[in-house]
Amino acid sequence: MQKKHLNNLIELLSIPSVSAQAEHKEDMVKTCLWLKKKFDQLGFAAQIYPTKCHPVFFAQNLSAGTTKPTVLIYGHYDVQAPDPLDEWVSEPFKPDVRKGNLYARGVADDKGQFYAWIAAIEEILEEQKGLPINIKFLIEGEEEIGSPTLDPFIKKYKKMLKADVCIISDSHALSESQPLVTYGLRGLVYTEVTLQTLARDAHSGSYGGNVINPANCLAEIIGQLKDKNHKILIPGFYDDVRHLSKAERKELAKFPFRTKQVKDEVGAFVVTGEKGFSVAERNGARPTLDVNGIWGGYAGEGPKTIIPAKAGAKISMRIVPGQTDTEIFAKFSKYVKKITPKGVKLTIKNLSSGNPILVDMTSSYQKAAAQALKKIFGKNPMYELAGGSIPVTCTFKEILGIDSVMMGYGLPDDGLHSPNEKMSLTMLEKGIATSKEFLKNL
Amino acid sequence: MQKKHLNNLIELLSIPSVSAQAEHKEDMVKTCLWLKKKFDQLGFAAQIYPTKCHPVFFAQNLSAGTTKPTVLIYGHYDVQAPDPLDEWVSEPFKPDVRKGNLYARGVADDKGQFYAWIAAIEEILEEQKGLPINIKFLIEGEEEIGSPTLDPFIKKYKKMLKADVCIISDSHALSESQPLVTYGLRGLVYTEVTLQTLARDAHSGSYGGNVINPANCLAEIIGQLKDKNHKILIPGFYDDVRHLSKAERKELAKFPFRTKQVKDEVGAFVVTGEKGFSVAERNGARPTLDVNGIWGGYAGEGPKTIIPAKAGAKISMRIVPGQTDTEIFAKFSKYVKKITPKGVKLTIKNLSSGNPILVDMTSSYQKAAAQALKKIFGKNPMYELAGGSIPVTCTFKEILGIDSVMMGYGLPDDGLHSPNEKMSLTMLEKGIATSKEFLKNL
Repeated sequence: MQKKHLNNLIELLSIPSVSAQAEHKEDMVKTCLWLKKKFDQLGFAAQIYPTKCHPVFFAQNLSAGTTKPTVLIYGHYDVQAPDPLDEWVSEPFKPDVRKGNLYARGVADDKGQFYAWIAAIEEILEEQKGLPINIKFLIEGEEEIGSPTLDPFIKKYKKMLKADVCIISDSHALSESQPLVTYGLRGLVYTEVTLQTLARDAHSGSYGGNVINPANCLAEIIGQLKDKNHKILIPGFYDDVRHLSKAERKELAKFPFRTKQVKDEVGAFVVTGEKGFSVAERNGARPTLDVNGIWGGYAGEGPKTIIPAKAGAKISMRIVPGQTDTEIFAKFSKYVKKITPKGVKLTIKNLSSGNPILVDMTSSYQKAAAQALKKIFGKNPMYELAGGSIPVTCTFKEILGIDSVMMGYGLPDDGLHSPNEKMSLTMLEKGIATSKEFLKNL
Repeated sequence: MQKKHLNNLIELLSIPSVSAQAEHKEDMVKTCLWLKKKFDQLGFAAQIYPTKCHPVFFAQNLSAGTTKPTVLIYGHYDVQAPDPLDEWVSEPFKPDVRKGNLYARGVADDKGQFYAWIAAIEEILEEQKGLPINIKFLIEGEEEIGSPTLDPFIKKYKKMLKADVCIISDSHALSESQPLVTYGLRGLVYTEVTLQTLARDAHSGSYGGNVINPANCLAEIIGQLKDKNHKILIPGFYDDVRHLSKAERKELAKFPFRTKQVKDEVGAFVVTGEKGFSVAERNGARPTLDVNGIWGGYAGEGPKTIIPAKAGAKISMRIVPGQTDTEIFAKFSKYVKKITPKGVKLTIKNLSSGNPILVDMTSSYQKAAAQALKKIFGKNPMYELAGGSIPVTCTFKEILGIDSVMMGYGLPDDGLHSPNEKMSLTMLEKGIATSKEFLKNL
C-alpha cells in the first residue's frame, strides 16, 4: 500500500466528525471541505450541499462518457461518539498504527472503507489517462443518527445521482482471507402500541376484579403474536415470504454463523428460533417479531398496589424479501385491533419502516465484484443474507431504481461504536486493490 | 356534641404528624406526648414506646376487672403529606370548620375517627364511676408508610395487648344515615417476576430470530395467567376459595357498589370481570390477579432496535377467605416456573403478602356493634366484603388470636390522602355516640 493513502486517511480520521454532538457541527463542514479538496485534486466536480442537519458531500467524474456505466459510491463521513474515552489505548482522533491495525474512531465505520475507493481511483488515475467508467460519490454525514435528511436529498437530486449501480463498503469480510458479499437485507416495521383502560391509575384492592388492566391486556396481546415454536400468528404474515431454493440453503449452510457465535456475542443462554430453519436462515431469510421495549405502571422498588391506567410496548418486525413494510404494518394493525378486547383505547403507531432488499445476483456488477474479490483475496466471496437493514439501499432501489453491491472491507472484530475501533491495514490494502480491480473491469 | 371534643381534636390535628417526612420526626413524638397527657387525664396508664421508626402509643384502663371483657382500640396518629398545598382552601394543619365539616389533614384518616373513641370514654367517665369494660388503646405512627415496626411490636408486647376483640374505625359509612361494617378483607400476594435471556441487550437485526426475547417471553407468561373470561389459570388457584351463601349473595346484592361508581371514580371505559359474579362480589369475594408494573428494553421516544437482555413485572393477587398467602405464592411460583421456557433465567420474589380476613359475624361484639349503629343512625348497618387489605387485622388475628370490629366514621367523599381532607361533624358526633353506646353495652 502506498504510504500517502495511510497519511491521507489519518488526516481524514483526525477530524472528529461526530454527527450526534452539536459541538462537532463545524467538524462536519471541515470534513466536507477536506473531501472537496481531495476530490478537486482528482479532477472530480465536487460540491457540499447544506441540509437542515449535516451537509451531504457529492462529487462526480463523468469523463468516461455516456457509453460507459456509471457507479454511485456511497459512504458516510460521520462517526459515532468516542466515549467511554478512558477505554481507548490511543486517542480516538489521533490515529495510531499498532500491530498491523490503524486505530481511530470511524476508521472502519466508515472512513477507511470509503477511502479505499478514493485511493483506488487515485491509483487508477496515476496509471492511466482518465477513468474507465463514470463515478459519482455520495458521502453523507448523518448515518449514525438515522440519516434524517438523506431521503429528501436523494429525491431532490434524483437526476444528479442517476447511476447504474451503487457500491457500499460499510460492512465486513469474514476474515482477511474470506471476502463476503451481502445480497439481501431484512426490512423493518417498527411499531408502538399503547393501551388505555382507565382515566387514572386505580387501587388494585378497590378496583381489582372489575376493570381491565391494560398491562395484563397488553401482555395477552403480545402472547398471541407468536406461538411456542416462534411462529408469528398474524394472519397472512408469511404469505409473501420468499422461499429459499435448495441451492441457496446449501450455500447458507456453509456460512459460519453458528450457535456458539451468538452465545459469545450477546451472552445468550440458549440459541433457538423458528423450527425447520438454521441459525443463518433465521438471521437473514426469515421474518421475526420482537418486543423492543415494554412499560406500564410501577417499576420502582418494592410493591405499589395499583392497576395502571396505561401500558405500551414497542414491537418491531424484521421482514424479508417478498414482504413489504406497508402490508405487514396493515396486517399487524388489523390483527392487534381484532384481538384487543372492548373497553380498551388502542393506539398503534408506525415509528419506522423500510422494505427488505434482495439484490439481483446475476448482474454484471455482482459478477465483477466476485471476480475482483476472488482475484485479491484468493477465494470466492461468501454470500450473506443479513439480519439488519441498510435503509439507504432501499432508497436507492426505490428512488433511483438501482441495486447495491455491498462488499465490506472491515472485519468482525473492528469494534464499531466501541472504544479502540480499528481497521486492519491488510484489509485496507486489499480493499484498495479490490476497488481498483472492480472499477477497471466493469 | 360537646364543644371540648372539637377543640381537643383541633389541637391534635394541629400537629403535623407526617410519618413519611423526616422533618416531622419531632412532631410524631409531640403527638404521642399530647395523647399521653389526654389519657393521663382519663386515668389510663399511658406509655410511649420508641421504635426504630416512629413511636407507638399505648394506654390501658383495666379497672373494670378480670370478669369484664377487654377491647383493644386501634388507630394511627400519623397522616399523609399534605401536598399539593396550593389546592387546600384552609391550611392542612390549621383545622377549619366550614359547612358542617372539619377540614384538616388526617381528620378522617385517622385522628377524628379514633378520637371519637377517646371522647366516648371521656363522656362515659363523666357520667359514671369507672369504665364498664377494660380498654386498651394502640395508636401507631407508621400506618401511612406500611407500619414497618408494628408487627414486631405486637409480637413483643403480645401479653400487654391481650384482648377479647379489636375495634378499628379507619374506614367509612355509606352516608350520614347508612352505617357500614366491614366483615371481610382480601389478602395480598405481591410478586416480582424477572426474566433474563442475554448477558446484554442485542441488536434486533443481527440476533432477532435466534435468541429468546425476555419481554416477549414475559408477556407470553402473563398471557397464560388468566383466560378471556378473567378466570385465573394457575392450577389449584380457586381450590380453597370460600363460596358465598345464597343469603350472603342476596345481602351483597343490596350493596350500592355499582358499575357507574367504578366508572366515575377511576374513569374506567368499561366495568367487567369474572363471569357469574356481581361487581360487589368481584370486589370483595373473588380473588384477582393484576400486573402492577411491567418493564423491559427501550421506553424512550422513537425506535430503538434492541432485544432487551431482561424484562420484569410486578404481579399481585388479591386473595379471599379460604386462600392463604403462602399457598397462593407457592402455586403461582410453581406455575410460572412450569410455563417459562428453557434458556430463561427466572426470578420470582414475594415482595409483600398477607392473608385475607373474615370476621365471625356471630360474635357478641359484632352484635353489639350492629345494635349501637342501629340505635344512633336509625338503620341497620350494611355489611361489606372489602377489596383491599388492612394488614394489622391479620396481625391481630394471627398473633393475638382476635377478630376486629371494623366500623367506619368517615364518609366516601372525605378526600383521604387528597387536599381538603374533611370529616363531617355529624359523623364525628354520631361516631362518639356509637362508640359510647357500644362500650356501655358490651
